[in-house]
Amino acid sequence: MSPQTDLDAYEVGYDIPAKPGMAEADVQTPSLVLDLDALERNIVRMGDYARTHGMRHRVHGKMHKSVDVAQLQMRLGGATGVCCQKVSEAEVFARGGIPDILVSNEVRDPAKIDRLARMPRFGARISVCVDDIANVAELSDAAVRHGTELDCLVEMDVGAGRCGVSGADAVVDIARAIDAAPGLCFAGLQAYQGAMQHLDNYSDRKAKVNIAIAMVTEAVAALKAAGLTPELVTGGGTGSYPFESSSGVYNELQCGSYAFMDADYGRILNKDGIRIDQGEWENALFVLTSVMSHANPGVAICDAGLKAQSVDSGLPVIFGRDDVAYLKCSDEHGVIADPHGALKVGDRLRLVPGHCDPTANLHDWYVGLRGGVVECVWPVSARGRGY
Amino acid sequence: MSPQTDLDAYEVGYDIPAKPGMAEADVQTPSLVLDLDALERNIVRMGDYARTHGMRHRVHGKMHKSVDVAQLQMRLGGATGVCCQKVSEAEVFARGGIPDILVSNEVRDPAKIDRLARMPRFGARISVCVDDIANVAELSDAAVRHGTELDCLVEMDVGAGRCGVSGADAVVDIARAIDAAPGLCFAGLQAYQGAMQHLDNYSDRKAKVNIAIAMVTEAVAALKAAGLTPELVTGGGTGSYPFESSSGVYNELQCGSYAFMDADYGRILNKDGIRIDQGEWENALFVLTSVMSHANPGVAICDAGLKAQSVDSGLPVIFGRDDVAYLKCSDEHGVIADPHGALKVGDRLRLVPGHCDPTANLHDWYVGLRGGVVECVWPVSARGRGY
Repeated sequence: MSPQTDLDAYEVGYDIPAKPGMAEADVQTPSLVLDLDALERNIVRMGDYARTHGMRHRVHGKMHKSVDVAQLQMRLGGATGVCCQKVSEAEVFARGGIPDILVSNEVRDPAKIDRLARMPRFGARISVCVDDIANVAELSDAAVRHGTELDCLVEMDVGAGRCGVSGADAVVDIARAIDAAPGLCFAGLQAYQGAMQHLDNYSDRKAKVNIAIAMVTEAVAALKAAGLTPELVTGGGTGSYPFESSSGVYNELQCGSYAFMDADYGRILNKDGIRIDQGEWENALFVLTSVMSHANPGVAICDAGLKAQSVDSGLPVIFGRDDVAYLKCSDEHGVIADPHGALKVGDRLRLVPGHCDPTANLHDWYVGLRGGVVECVWPVSARGRGY
Repeated sequence: MSPQTDLDAYEVGYDIPAKPGMAEADVQTPSLVLDLDALERNIVRMGDYARTHGMRHRVHGKMHKSVDVAQLQMRLGGATGVCCQKVSEAEVFARGGIPDILVSNEVRDPAKIDRLARMPRFGARISVCVDDIANVAELSDAAVRHGTELDCLVEMDVGAGRCGVSGADAVVDIARAIDAAPGLCFAGLQAYQGAMQHLDNYSDRKAKVNIAIAMVTEAVAALKAAGLTPELVTGGGTGSYPFESSSGVYNELQCGSYAFMDADYGRILNKDGIRIDQGEWENALFVLTSVMSHANPGVAICDAGLKAQSVDSGLPVIFGRDDVAYLKCSDEHGVIADPHGALKVGDRLRLVPGHCDPTANLHDWYVGLRGGVVECVWPVSARGRGY
């Protein structure tokens, strides 16, 4: 450990895990660390993909909840803006200078609608999804009240069974109402097939997306026939974007996880041996953890448990090690099988979290590393912004 | 919704879900709400139990991570202090005026040890666990450097297979080293059987705790024989405290979940029909959620998903409703079976989270409710303090 002043030792660790210039070995654990080289390569690669396929790329900001990462995605990857799921997240991105923000979700609470309709005043283009004709008047009233304009996309349920309407007729009805409503502008279709992104099998994913594409194609034709050509047809995640890109009907992607990757997407993309992209996404996000007890032979205990990572999509994978394995996760501890006694107290490991989105949401800071040194410490700007 | 000024609508929801005096119907969702009456009854009941059984009660602060709740547990429940799992949590409690704080975990990182050893300067009694004789010199050096005193407890592994030493000899060896080390004071034994707390069956729990009690009894006898009588023999959670209380060897409980309760403990305590306590713990903690889409008949979508609650111990239960059921949890949405069409957009539900500890750690605020009105908004003071 490098020498620290007494004050440094107190400040770092209390509410921030590192400072720029620090050696990686001094970063407080457990914390979220980013391999900046890998992150930048992922961002450039997806940017290149979108550009060569003629797709806009609106990156999913709900994955990382970080203004800094979103700005990097615009600068290096040509992203046009972000989508996110909550009004309070959108506020953070708007204040952080993101120029085009889609709340890819329905907003129904009166206080949230009011906040949404104020937001164009920050200077960003603000869009929102609608799946109920009653919502159109709510949004319109608020936009008129604030003297702003909201872009509205009709959300289709293309197989996820969550939000969104089914069928071209319902789409056209809502689009017409939006088009006629003061303060609102009909901007297109939201059609994200979230439920298929994590299917293990390539052909299963392809079949599910083909159903979605057929539904969207029909809806777009019906909209055109009604004189309501959609500017945006948006959707497509890390598990599906090549399908939407070659669909001839989508014109915008909403990928998120490609930038960080996680163990669940890693298993899926690698499983059936068919690469859905032109190169493998690199793990750029890790939970850095330390061994803090090894009283029992064969088992090491690390300091990253349920409060440092979400296990909804499975346990983390220990990066770059096949001699040890993460076995069990309790609130503040991880139990690691160490059959060869390879680990000792103080050793550090990089965990690839099972699911990047809810893991990022547990932390306040990203520690950006390059060449073993802390280059930046970025806030998880919209962490906890769930309203 | 009650009238709000434009400014209020913006401030509430951006980073705080409610203000004191607000009606429950105006609280922004998803958010953590506390039924203050139920919370206070739970706290008084456990305080009465500990007092009548001659046990100290050191409440587990890692459950709620709240200075306000800990202060309430001291005021209404006679709690003597808190335990917690991380140095950064302990710092929050120390600054919040908690007089007696045990980090019921090992601390091995040099920067963390340094911060721990500074902490008695805040005025609190600070204790920590040790399960490796090499740790004694590390702690002693830091305490001497800061001119402070740290109380040290030897942690025993009494069946959880995590941290802690096995066997009375190892306990005595470490206790002797602590006793001889400048700046350290041997304070007793930490013997918490975490792994059995959630076993469904009463007799399984009893059998596991009896093994732990036998190990602790043997260790205490060995310590006494070595002239090192432990002041504290501490352990016992919501799933086990009557066993430790009647053991004749433990003198301190470390219960946490009893105050809030959760769906997992609820299932366990109710399952085999044998009450392990004199009364049922009430659900005091809820995730308040709103229905935000109902485009598909039979299924309502609410705004509380993985980022509003931890599903490591199962899905949430919808409080007070048997006509609807929480079926599926994605990042920001919950899918609710609504077979009778009982729900409409805007309806609010109280979810009992599967596991209270990691759920509380997702939120920044507790909204305290009494009689349908917001009485207080308390920070989750140590949220994210995982270092």
